[in-house]
Amino acid sequence: MKIVLIGAGNVGYHLGKKLREIGEDVIFVFSRKWHNANKLASLINAKPSISLDQIPTYADLYIIAVHDDAILSTGEKLAAIGCRDKLVVHTAGATPISVFENTGLERYGTFYPLQTFSFGKEPDFQKIPICVDANEKADIDLLKKLALKISPNVHHFNDEQKAQIHVAAVFVNNFTNHLFSIADQILHERNVPFNILLPLIEETVDKIKNNDPVKMQTGPAVRGDEATIKCHLNLIKSNAIYKKIYQLMTESIQQSNTKN
Amino acid sequence: MKIVLIGAGNVGYHLGKKLREIGEDVIFVFSRKWHNANKLASLINAKPSISLDQIPTYADLYIIAVHDDAILSTGEKLAAIGCRDKLVVHTAGATPISVFENTGLERYGTFYPLQTFSFGKEPDFQKIPICVDANEKADIDLLKKLALKISPNVHHFNDEQKAQIHVAAVFVNNFTNHLFSIADQILHERNVPFNILLPLIEETVDKIKNNDPVKMQTGPAVRGDEATIKCHLNLIKSNAIYKKIYQLMTESIQQSNTKN
Repeated sequence: MKIVLIGAGNVGYHLGKKLREIGEDVIFVFSRKWHNANKLASLINAKPSISLDQIPTYADLYIIAVHDDAILSTGEKLAAIGCRDKLVVHTAGATPISVFENTGLERYGTFYPLQTFSFGKEPDFQKIPICVDANEKADIDLLKKLALKISPNVHHFNDEQKAQIHVAAVFVNNFTNHLFSIADQILHERNVPFNILLPLIEETVDKIKNNDPVKMQTGPAVRGDEATIKCHLNLIKSNAIYKKIYQLMTESIQQSNTKN
Repeated sequence: MKIVLIGAGNVGYHLGKKLREIGEDVIFVFSRKWHNANKLASLINAKPSISLDQIPTYADLYIIAVHDDAILSTGEKLAAIGCRDKLVVHTAGATPISVFENTGLERYGTFYPLQTFSFGKEPDFQKIPICVDANEKADIDLLKKLALKISPNVHHFNDEQKAQIHVAAVFVNNFTNHLFSIADQILHERNVPFNILLPLIEETVDKIKNNDPVKMQTGPAVRGDEATIKCHLNLIKSNAIYKKIYQLMTESIQQSNTKN
């Protein structure tokens, strides 16, 4: 399949390399930054470009891996340069496929790898769920087939489901990472190294692999141990927002527990 | 070493089995529940009891693994029955060693395994940090020596440090698990299975093994992506407390990021 890749950031970079690895023909890599376009293109034997006007119109699939707020204009541009009848997908979790509805594009969808990517860390695609969707049934099948070459973990979710997945991902990834930051900061004040918490963090994750998280809840909040809660709030009183987070999470744990 | 174990809950159970495994002589197991005392004692060849008055006074070490609010009275009881000059430790993260100050006990400390224990899941003690402390230098050394037979990850922390570790542990364990519960609930509303998030959760943890969490922060909050934040808040608007958590975590991420 001839593929055009628009965007060479974290997602575009790793996805482009993977597509090449499974034998797909990525013919063209666009990035606003020449360095990024050229770096990826040279790795996967594609043509790099910083101009959307140079995008070839004869590819089978156009993958848009740019910031959410540039997806609409990129779709419009593709329609304008002669790709109206080509399949165009984006890789963003937060943006629905309906973003393309009034662009003039006839076939559109998403190809959303549910993972956090970083430069300098190779992702294991075998473990990454890929969520696909398209406005035409045949294109859903085409995207599924392509996704299955990359990962066994392929799903078709509609816009409502994908939006829900994305907000859930913010809770388990962004917010969890921020809790780790807070813990790091709290320990730093007493010269305790953060890595002392790693075994506990790993066990926290291990426990929910085969159990509902709500049933795995432990700690002073769920025990109703008010003395410990008071003591903890006193320890973090110098940081108003950490204290608020502690109080709100405690309240929320106690609410969930009452319901269950 | 002759050891008396007071408490046969999650911590007492696993610690008792481990102490036996490394060749220590756990001679006596107390629990308020006969079933728990007997279950553990029979596994490790100790005498079970539901009476504190039966505790032998000739042991070398008394380990109190009971709820925080029963530690003080247990210490007082041990002093009363003739263990004033024996080394008494508790296993609780939230309680300082100073709890024993006015009990009449002369030698006291903590032996705190920094992990979340569950019945039915064998802990890997090799990976568990053990934090020890005592009011006498010689006893700190004695506890360190014992801990090193269980885990290579042994630390001496004072009461202030241990309190800070415990509150940090609440953030990374209790609160993180609650974020997982919230995500589970959010996905459940649209019939999306929670396990689709597991690779993302594992990667979230993997990233902080070698990097400061604050530097690993991604997502709409740190990007200042107000459109996505607004869209997410709208998706979860039916649950007031989830919405509050989203707003507060977003605010806190943005504050931390400004500082760094």
